[in-house]
Amino acid sequence: MAPGRLLEVYLDLLSQPCRAVRILLARTGIPHRVCAVALRKGEQRTAEFTKLNPMQKVPVMVDNGFVLTESDAILKYLTTKEGVPEHWYPPQPDRRARVDEYTAWHHTNTRPHAAKVFLLEVLFPAQSGGPVDEARLRRALSDLDGTLDKLESMFLRRQPFLCGDDITIADLLAVCEIMQPLGGGRDILKDRPLLQRWKSRVQSAVGEAFDEAHSVLYGLRDRRKAKL
Amino acid sequence: MAPGRLLEVYLDLLSQPCRAVRILLARTGIPHRVCAVALRKGEQRTAEFTKLNPMQKVPVMVDNGFVLTESDAILKYLTTKEGVPEHWYPPQPDRRARVDEYTAWHHTNTRPHAAKVFLLEVLFPAQSGGPVDEARLRRALSDLDGTLDKLESMFLRRQPFLCGDDITIADLLAVCEIMQPLGGGRDILKDRPLLQRWKSRVQSAVGEAFDEAHSVLYGLRDRRKAKL
Repeated sequence: MAPGRLLEVYLDLLSQPCRAVRILLARTGIPHRVCAVALRKGEQRTAEFTKLNPMQKVPVMVDNGFVLTESDAILKYLTTKEGVPEHWYPPQPDRRARVDEYTAWHHTNTRPHAAKVFLLEVLFPAQSGGPVDEARLRRALSDLDGTLDKLESMFLRRQPFLCGDDITIADLLAVCEIMQPLGGGRDILKDRPLLQRWKSRVQSAVGEAFDEAHSVLYGLRDRRKAKL
Repeated sequence: MAPGRLLEVYLDLLSQPCRAVRILLARTGIPHRVCAVALRKGEQRTAEFTKLNPMQKVPVMVDNGFVLTESDAILKYLTTKEGVPEHWYPPQPDRRARVDEYTAWHHTNTRPHAAKVFLLEVLFPAQSGGPVDEARLRRALSDLDGTLDKLESMFLRRQPFLCGDDITIADLLAVCEIMQPLGGGRDILKDRPLLQRWKSRVQSAVGEAFDEAHSVLYGLRDRRKAKL
């Protein structure tokens, strides 16, 4: 591969979907270069980045001039790379459909509900300097509870991973969202042994890529804890 | 194909994603049977339907015992059927990624924003017997405007269809959402010639399946018009 042709990803590891992309790349060994985009510094709004992605969002992937946005699409595209094991996004129509079913559901369930708890407990108070909006937080936690119930009772009812017997990109997207409230010191799986076991299986399957991708989130949690 | 093995879809044609599924099935000629689920009668909450889909949502597809939810996943699965032209969901990684990129974006943009206008103008007043909440409607229309701007300036900037030179399942999902406010008599493409031309191209490409799938929505529009 000629230099400069290396696949590039623009990421902020405090963003859940960015971590999913980072874990897949690290775990599968796809040669790549990470370009850091610090959302807290507003780097997604620079002229240069806006040219790359007018939506001003991360992650963005650039593969030999092909610019792709949306983590869901990026993860699926990456699985077409040489040497990536099939289990990440199985080619059989029914098994693949299970992954597409979860990722579609994810966009309006796991993603917004886990993200909102983090926004309300960490981001908004940090930006405004004000206290946490407890009423909104209670509603957000209740929505999140509904989502966690469904993950347990539907997706994980009879299988070790969200879409079957092996790990897929669906598990990566989900686990990275579920980790997010930890940035505010909140472990949303505390009383959820079934989801805890699933999370352990995901961690074992991806190895050190898991903690590496979450190092920034762990740092945030630890700094907040030290302040209390 | 043995009788009883026919692919089944559970649909309500007043639901946007159901229409997208119906159009693909009709246009591609995949043998199937439609099972009507009347949302206004709460038929998605019957014990029988809940057994099929515990999420109590349409569409649902059953293919030889394989039960699949989420329109996005159903459409992609259907394109794997024999004889379905490749252009609906191109197999080339970069062209397919463009469809995945749109469908991921759709879930948090076109879908909620067009749906909300319909809910506020038609469904909520019908359920409550009260007037339209004008303040919420103004906000919903403003969000929808932002989405229509992006469809024009990003997805359709240099190409006739959302993901390239030919129609894909992305266009079906999008057009069915954009049609929805018409149920309340609102043509959201009135001052949008670029999107109007795109809609015409989609209509030409799918033929009579378009009006057939939208007949229930047209009926709703006409009944409301007659009442005014």
